[in-house]
Amino acid sequence: MTTGLPFDDFRTLIETLPGPDDAAVAVVRKRDSMLTKPPGALGRLEEIVEWLAAWTGRSQPQVTRPLVAVFAGNHGVTAKGVSPYPSSVTAQMVENFAAGGAAINQICIANDLGLKIFDLALEYPTADITEDAAMDEKTCAATMAFGMESIAGGTDLLCIGEMGIGNTTIAAAIFHALYGGAAEDWVGPGTGSDREGMKRKADAVRAAVALHGSHLKDPLEVLRRLGGREVAAMVGAILATRVEKIPVIIDGYVATAAAAILHTANPEAIDHCLIGHVSAEPGHHKVLERLGKKPLLDLGMRLGEGTGAALAAGIVKAAALCHSGMATFEQAGISNRD
Amino acid sequence: MTTGLPFDDFRTLIETLPGPDDAAVAVVRKRDSMLTKPPGALGRLEEIVEWLAAWTGRSQPQVTRPLVAVFAGNHGVTAKGVSPYPSSVTAQMVENFAAGGAAINQICIANDLGLKIFDLALEYPTADITEDAAMDEKTCAATMAFGMESIAGGTDLLCIGEMGIGNTTIAAAIFHALYGGAAEDWVGPGTGSDREGMKRKADAVRAAVALHGSHLKDPLEVLRRLGGREVAAMVGAILATRVEKIPVIIDGYVATAAAAILHTANPEAIDHCLIGHVSAEPGHHKVLERLGKKPLLDLGMRLGEGTGAALAAGIVKAAALCHSGMATFEQAGISNRD
Repeated sequence: MTTGLPFDDFRTLIETLPGPDDAAVAVVRKRDSMLTKPPGALGRLEEIVEWLAAWTGRSQPQVTRPLVAVFAGNHGVTAKGVSPYPSSVTAQMVENFAAGGAAINQICIANDLGLKIFDLALEYPTADITEDAAMDEKTCAATMAFGMESIAGGTDLLCIGEMGIGNTTIAAAIFHALYGGAAEDWVGPGTGSDREGMKRKADAVRAAVALHGSHLKDPLEVLRRLGGREVAAMVGAILATRVEKIPVIIDGYVATAAAAILHTANPEAIDHCLIGHVSAEPGHHKVLERLGKKPLLDLGMRLGEGTGAALAAGIVKAAALCHSGMATFEQAGISNRD
Repeated sequence: MTTGLPFDDFRTLIETLPGPDDAAVAVVRKRDSMLTKPPGALGRLEEIVEWLAAWTGRSQPQVTRPLVAVFAGNHGVTAKGVSPYPSSVTAQMVENFAAGGAAINQICIANDLGLKIFDLALEYPTADITEDAAMDEKTCAATMAFGMESIAGGTDLLCIGEMGIGNTTIAAAIFHALYGGAAEDWVGPGTGSDREGMKRKADAVRAAVALHGSHLKDPLEVLRRLGGREVAAMVGAILATRVEKIPVIIDGYVATAAAAILHTANPEAIDHCLIGHVSAEPGHHKVLERLGKKPLLDLGMRLGEGTGAALAAGIVKAAALCHSGMATFEQAGISNRD
């Protein structure tokens, strides 16, 4: 695994990512046509198996070591009153993950997924983005490199999620920088901000994007100036999985900010990523339209922690099992179409 | 378990079904408000737990014995060329279920669900509905009673699905009888009919509804005259689960026809049923609007076999586990909102 890349080497990596394995996809399509079901009758489950083949390079893809990686960070912008919860909750929730008491723990049990939590210097929040760049270049690069290491233990399906009080404001600032519009277009209730809280969020987003101005034409500068540590780590994880042939399920609004940065830098950079769930956070569906991604699930959730991705992983596991486990018409002795 | 009810006793049962357990729902809501997440952040997962409480009467609902019941029947209307597959495929697919080779087998493995297949006199197709009533009253009542027995082995979450060559035509005829419109509104490709095949399906649906005419004002007559055996059995299963306090996940287009018959007879009769997945069969979303039901999943599937319900059962299991397994703010020592 590559670590400690200088910032510019990340730019090169993003531009030179490996493509899909079309031969593996062709093998999947051929077998699918022989399985005991009408062609196309499993809908997106069939697309998922092709996607697994394309990005693992395996012609009979399996999901046997799925992993949820949750990246946690703290944010100086919370000083602007952008969340109804105090920043101390980020570390408290990391403890809750370790103790098995959070929603993501239960969903991992339900779908038999591994879970790893990466806390990113929670005692050192990034700078308040309305006043300064969130990170210097060295910190941002090191955090991306740390995110790349998240798959070092091995997995064949990575679900990427996050935890960080204040980070829906961070994500909104990133989307506003990447996609324009009004600050309000990207701001939602997050963990439950009221009208006044949402106004403070929009003010912070507007101020941050105004402060960093023309620097935001460069997606990696968007990450460095507006992103939190967890966003930088997720960018690293998405890059490393691509190189290591590991398909990815992206969780909700904040995790999608990492994907959007890469997609802006290279529109093919997130082709190995599915979006697990469209968040109830109102800006998410607008982002997904720009990314050309249709989420697997739409269950009105807005929790983060990787919960939407982990629920979607159950669907992906079932899709892989259908493809590998079903009988062919010939094996089952079933009459095909008249 | 009640069996062998005369036809009129089913009418009485449908009108006197037990209601929800509001006290259990109140206990769930109270605990939910204490769990380590922002209020409402688990979206439909929270609604699912309330629904489980309402219809099991348990204030901390669990899903420990989920079961998929697949009902298989054959249909005289296949003589009208309504399916590209021969009727013999129904029995062949039942063999495939038994051998573990179908899609539903794999999804049951993926989500750890029990699976029972009920084949309903496959060698005796119901009468061609364009020429006669599908069943006499005694057969219809006996088949509903058989369906009621499907839960005799016990379960705490029943997924209801079906298999039967020709049965999307049967379902379309039922929906046309219940909801009017044009025959074409309810006819789709099913297992993969081409344009000519869909025309034959619409012709059959139109002819059947014209033949049975004013008798179709009575929902149980719709079932007897237009329904297949698997539809009658599913009606019985939905009734029995309600009495036995077992929540239900309805699969796709054909299973929803059973639910629609009951809903027409008593709009509250399917309040204990979730719709697992909206079928790619184009009429399904129109039916779901009439039933006031929002499906859990939308994955472009159109296979039947209970596959959509079984995938949705994974979400329901995860929802129950989140509610029972998560820590409260107090247990986890986490600061609540400012």
